[in-house]
Amino acid sequence: MRPVAILGIGQTPVDEHWEKSLRNLAAEAVFAALQDAGLETADALFVGNMLSPLVDRQNHLGALIADWIGFWGKEAFKVEAACASGAAAVRAAILAVASGEIETAVALGVEKMTDTIGSQVTAALATAADADYEVEQGVSFVGLNALLMRRYMHEHGWKHADFAPFSINAHANALHNPFARLHDAIDVQAFERSPMVATPINLLDASPIGDGAAAVIVVPAEKVQPSHSRPRIRVLASTVATDSIAVHSRRDPLFLQAAFLSARQAYQMAGLLPEAIDLFELHDAFTIMAALSLEACGFAERGQAPRLALEGEITPQGRIPICTRGGLKARGHPVGATGVYQIVEVVQQLRGQCGPTQVADARIGMAQNIGGSGSTIYTHILQAEMW
Amino acid sequence: MRPVAILGIGQTPVDEHWEKSLRNLAAEAVFAALQDAGLETADALFVGNMLSPLVDRQNHLGALIADWIGFWGKEAFKVEAACASGAAAVRAAILAVASGEIETAVALGVEKMTDTIGSQVTAALATAADADYEVEQGVSFVGLNALLMRRYMHEHGWKHADFAPFSINAHANALHNPFARLHDAIDVQAFERSPMVATPINLLDASPIGDGAAAVIVVPAEKVQPSHSRPRIRVLASTVATDSIAVHSRRDPLFLQAAFLSARQAYQMAGLLPEAIDLFELHDAFTIMAALSLEACGFAERGQAPRLALEGEITPQGRIPICTRGGLKARGHPVGATGVYQIVEVVQQLRGQCGPTQVADARIGMAQNIGGSGSTIYTHILQAEMW
Repeated sequence: MRPVAILGIGQTPVDEHWEKSLRNLAAEAVFAALQDAGLETADALFVGNMLSPLVDRQNHLGALIADWIGFWGKEAFKVEAACASGAAAVRAAILAVASGEIETAVALGVEKMTDTIGSQVTAALATAADADYEVEQGVSFVGLNALLMRRYMHEHGWKHADFAPFSINAHANALHNPFARLHDAIDVQAFERSPMVATPINLLDASPIGDGAAAVIVVPAEKVQPSHSRPRIRVLASTVATDSIAVHSRRDPLFLQAAFLSARQAYQMAGLLPEAIDLFELHDAFTIMAALSLEACGFAERGQAPRLALEGEITPQGRIPICTRGGLKARGHPVGATGVYQIVEVVQQLRGQCGPTQVADARIGMAQNIGGSGSTIYTHILQAEMW
Repeated sequence: MRPVAILGIGQTPVDEHWEKSLRNLAAEAVFAALQDAGLETADALFVGNMLSPLVDRQNHLGALIADWIGFWGKEAFKVEAACASGAAAVRAAILAVASGEIETAVALGVEKMTDTIGSQVTAALATAADADYEVEQGVSFVGLNALLMRRYMHEHGWKHADFAPFSINAHANALHNPFARLHDAIDVQAFERSPMVATPINLLDASPIGDGAAAVIVVPAEKVQPSHSRPRIRVLASTVATDSIAVHSRRDPLFLQAAFLSARQAYQMAGLLPEAIDLFELHDAFTIMAALSLEACGFAERGQAPRLALEGEITPQGRIPICTRGGLKARGHPVGATGVYQIVEVVQQLRGQCGPTQVADARIGMAQNIGGSGSTIYTHILQAEMW
C-alpha cells in the first residue's frame, strides 16, 4: 500500500435543513473540501449513507451525487455499514488511493433524516440491527443500548449521574463548533432531569439525529508537502472489525470486541500505543457507547470509563480528550455522515484550528465510528507532519 | 496495483426462494465459492445489494452476513450502485486486494426480492432513478426503458420483432444453465405474443426478478498457479464510469456514454481491442439495453445491434456471444447480485465448463453491469492463463 494523506476537509452544519435536499448538502460539503484542498475536482467519489432508500426513497447516491457535483463520467458508489457508513466511505477512498488506481478521492458522508416523522426514522434506524432476530421481537435501537447501559451499571456499580460528564463535555465543546447541532451548555442537574427515552437512557444520554454532510479529500502522501501554515495529515492506520450483529449473540455484550480488534490493529499499523493518542473522536451515540469505546481501546480498565470522565480526563485539557467538537451528542449524529465528520474534526485538531477546545500540541488523533450496537467498528489514526 | 485473479466461484439458483432468507442465500454462495477455491475462509467480505433496506427492512448486510458465515471479526461492508451493486462489490474486492491490504476477499452479490408484492418491488426498483426529478413525475423503471426503446425504433427504423433474437438467444442458453431462473425455449411468435408491460416493452423484452446470491474469491495473481485442469483467471481490467442519473439530462439518451467510457478504459487497461473479446456477459435488463451496450462497447455501429442479433452473431457460435448462460433475461435478475453472476459465468466460460453453450477456445471474457438506466456502468475483462 502506498501511504495516503488527507488534503482537504469540508462540512455543513448539522441541523434540520428543510430548505436543502440531500444532494444540496452533499455538494456543499464536497465543494468546501475541494476548496480547502485547493483542487477543482477529484477522480472518484465514495459516498457513505445509511437511510436514503428508506427516508428519501433514493438509492444510487454515487451516480446521483457525482452527476450533481459535476463529476461527469467518474467512479462513484455508495457504501453502507449502518452508522459506520461514513468511516466505511473513508476507508474505501483510502484503499482506492492506496491501490494506485485512483489519485484523488472524495469520501463523502451524507444523511437527510428530518424530512420525515420520528417514528419512521426510529424504524429506519432499527435496520442496523438484526431484522429477523432482534427487531422482530420489538426492540428498538435505543432499547438495545438501554439494555447494555443497565447491565453495565449493575455490573460495575455506577449510578446514572456518573455518566453526566460525557454529555457535559460534549455540550461544552460544541459551544465552540459552528457546525454543531446543539449550542447549549448543560450541567449534572439538567442531565438528571432530562426526559426518559428508554430506561436508563434519557434524552441527554442520547445523540440527536440531524441532516448533514461532511467530506474529506484523500491523496497519495507523496503529493502533499507540509508547509509553515499547514501540516501534512498522514493516515497512519485505517482498520475495521466486525462482531455479531445481534447483541444477544455476544459472549460478553459489555465488551466491544470489534472496537478492541480494530483499535489493536490500528495501533500496530501506526506503530504506537494508546498513550500516544492526543485526542479521540469516539462514537458517543449514547453515553454507554462512549464508556465502552474508551475501555475497548485501552484508555480505561473494564468498568472504569465513568471514573476517567468524572476525573475530567476526557476534556480538551485531560489525558484523553474526546468529542472535542461536540461528538455525536452535541455536534449531532446524521448517521451515515458521522464517520466523516469525525475525520474532519481530527484534521481540524491536528491543524490547530479548534480555538477554545484545541488540544495543546495535538499531533496524533484517532477516530472511531460504530455501526449497529458494536457490530462494525472502524478506527482511523491520523498524524500531523510539520514542515 | 498488484495483479489479481479470481480463484473461486459460487452461486445459488435464481428462483423464488421462499424457504431461504437473505443470509441463507448469501452463505450458500460464499461457501460454494470458498470450496471451489479450496479455501476455508477469507480475509474480508464485500457485499453488493440494492433492495434489502426496502424489501427486507435490513441494512448493515456486511456485519450481518460476516457473522452468519463465520467471518468473525473480519472486514465487511455493503456497496450499493443500484443494479450495478454486484459489480461494485467485485471492484471493491479487487481494489482491496490490489492495494496489498487484503490477501483474500469475497465479493458477494445477494438479493431477496420475491417475499413482497410486485408493486412494492417496482417502487423499490424506482429508487435507482432520480427520486426528485424522475420518479416524482410518476415514471417507473421499465417506463424509462420503454421511452428509450420507442425512440430507438423510431430513429433507426427497427420493428419490435427485430429485438426477438436477444431474448431467444438468452432463453436458449439458459436451458443448459441449472442456476437459471427460466428453462423454456421461445421463438419469434412467442416473443411477439407476449403480454405488454410498457409499450413497446413486453414481458419477453424484460428480465425477471428473482432471489439469488453469487460470490467470487479475489486473490493476488501471484498466489495462483495455473494447472492442467484449470486455468488461472486473471483480472485484466476493472473499470467504472457514471452518467447523469436522470435520462432526460443526457445529450444523447440512445448512447450509453458510461458504457463507452468504462469499456474504452477497460480495453486500454487490458491492452486489447473489442475484437479480442471471446464472449460478453452484458446487462440485458431489457432487450433495448442489450442493443445499446453492444453499440457503446464497439461491437456494432450506432443503431445496428439488432442486425448483429438477427444475423446470429450473438449466439455461442457467433462473432460476439452474449448472455451465454441466459443473461438477465433468462438466468434472471436478482438486482444487486446480477453483477457477480456475470463474473461467475465468465469464469465458467474461461474454464470451459459450459457444455452446449461453451464458446470455443474462450480465452478472454468481458462482463458489464449497469445501474439505473445507464447511470453507473462497470466493465470487467478476465483472461484465462493456461498451464
